[in-house]
Amino acid sequence: MQLFYAPDIMPPLHTLGEEESKHCVRVLRLRSGGRIHITDGRGNLFCCEITDDNPKRCTVRVVSTEEGFEKMPYALTVAVAPTKNPDRFEWLLEKATEVGVTEFLPLDTAHSERHVFKPLRGEKVITAAMKQSLKAYRPTLLPLTPFREAVLRPFEGRRFIAHCAPARSPEGKAYLPDTLRAGEAAAVFIGPEGDFSPEEIDFALANGFEEITLGTQRLRTETAALVATVMASVVNPPKRRDL
Amino acid sequence: MQLFYAPDIMPPLHTLGEEESKHCVRVLRLRSGGRIHITDGRGNLFCCEITDDNPKRCTVRVVSTEEGFEKMPYALTVAVAPTKNPDRFEWLLEKATEVGVTEFLPLDTAHSERHVFKPLRGEKVITAAMKQSLKAYRPTLLPLTPFREAVLRPFEGRRFIAHCAPARSPEGKAYLPDTLRAGEAAAVFIGPEGDFSPEEIDFALANGFEEITLGTQRLRTETAALVATVMASVVNPPKRRDL
Repeated sequence: MQLFYAPDIMPPLHTLGEEESKHCVRVLRLRSGGRIHITDGRGNLFCCEITDDNPKRCTVRVVSTEEGFEKMPYALTVAVAPTKNPDRFEWLLEKATEVGVTEFLPLDTAHSERHVFKPLRGEKVITAAMKQSLKAYRPTLLPLTPFREAVLRPFEGRRFIAHCAPARSPEGKAYLPDTLRAGEAAAVFIGPEGDFSPEEIDFALANGFEEITLGTQRLRTETAALVATVMASVVNPPKRRDL
Repeated sequence: MQLFYAPDIMPPLHTLGEEESKHCVRVLRLRSGGRIHITDGRGNLFCCEITDDNPKRCTVRVVSTEEGFEKMPYALTVAVAPTKNPDRFEWLLEKATEVGVTEFLPLDTAHSERHVFKPLRGEKVITAAMKQSLKAYRPTLLPLTPFREAVLRPFEGRRFIAHCAPARSPEGKAYLPDTLRAGEAAAVFIGPEGDFSPEEIDFALANGFEEITLGTQRLRTETAALVATVMASVVNPPKRRDL
């Protein structure tokens, strides 16, 4: 299956952009009558037939539409500070998109290495990972948000803060896979390379966040964010019939 | 804590190599009387006192030794074909070392992108990840091994093969986190970018392997290998007292 991304697709007809037309006609050598799949990144999977194999503006006709294609049974927001090395953050965007995430919330924290975040490369990485892993839902990359603003952001679900300091709540830290339940929407805040400040942790806890641990290993911030993403997927196992 | 790696350390005295001496004395600005930790990568954590802060051959004296430092309660062999893009494989070595793995077994498979594997860079990545994540056990990077030889390799534990093709055994595929039990030693074989061949899958199954799935997502080979590594860690949750 060849998946193309067209957020602006308006069935029944669509004309691919120059780059994708070239990929479709020159690289994949598809001709009129050939089939491709297109997603709008909002869950719609369009099966299309090529009506004009023009290598610069390939036109297709939607022959069938599948809504909510492989919709995740849960919502997951991964909130993490962009890493000092941009490659590490882009790596996270790619891997978490493959595993399954609803939105990325880049955090500007007290110990953040970067206070400016250019989303362009990240957006490209997310789109490429979505297409490569044949997903019809494209994770949202939110703008860099100050920590407190991110904590106060309305969110329908449970909110967790993962940090390396000793627990600051009387309940102590829960192990994410033990506390998260199937189907629950979750926002997981991951500490930056210098971890969250005690004030940040207390502010989150005072605003309804739950303290969690991802285990006893010392993980890099981008590794921790991906581990949390995998843990959320393990809490929502595939249906037997899908295996 | 500053962790140094010295596979050849012979207590009570040890002299750091030129690079680590420079890091210790010039970069960290540690002086005689200062403390550092050294691991031999075999589970021993040595707390050492600097006796000679020579920036080219810093000498230390072991003041205390902790054996089996943070030993994993399970053994995990991750067997995967080196990716076409070496960075992706090195990324896996780093991340899986952080999360926890016993040994990496690079596979030479029917659909492998690479039939030659130079371990030097990978070894460096593993050592750096071990030190960065403060581990005293260094994962072993085995040589590139032909698939059938890898299947026939003696292994004390359960052996799993993860592939994207329909199940080829009457039992079908199990979901790794459902079938793996805490404390079990496991070897997980991950399909290459072109997946395992039907013959390879059948050969593994005929030799005691169990078919597994890591879920319904379509994961890149290096992502799948890391996901399996995280799943094994989730199956072996931390003790309450460690949280």
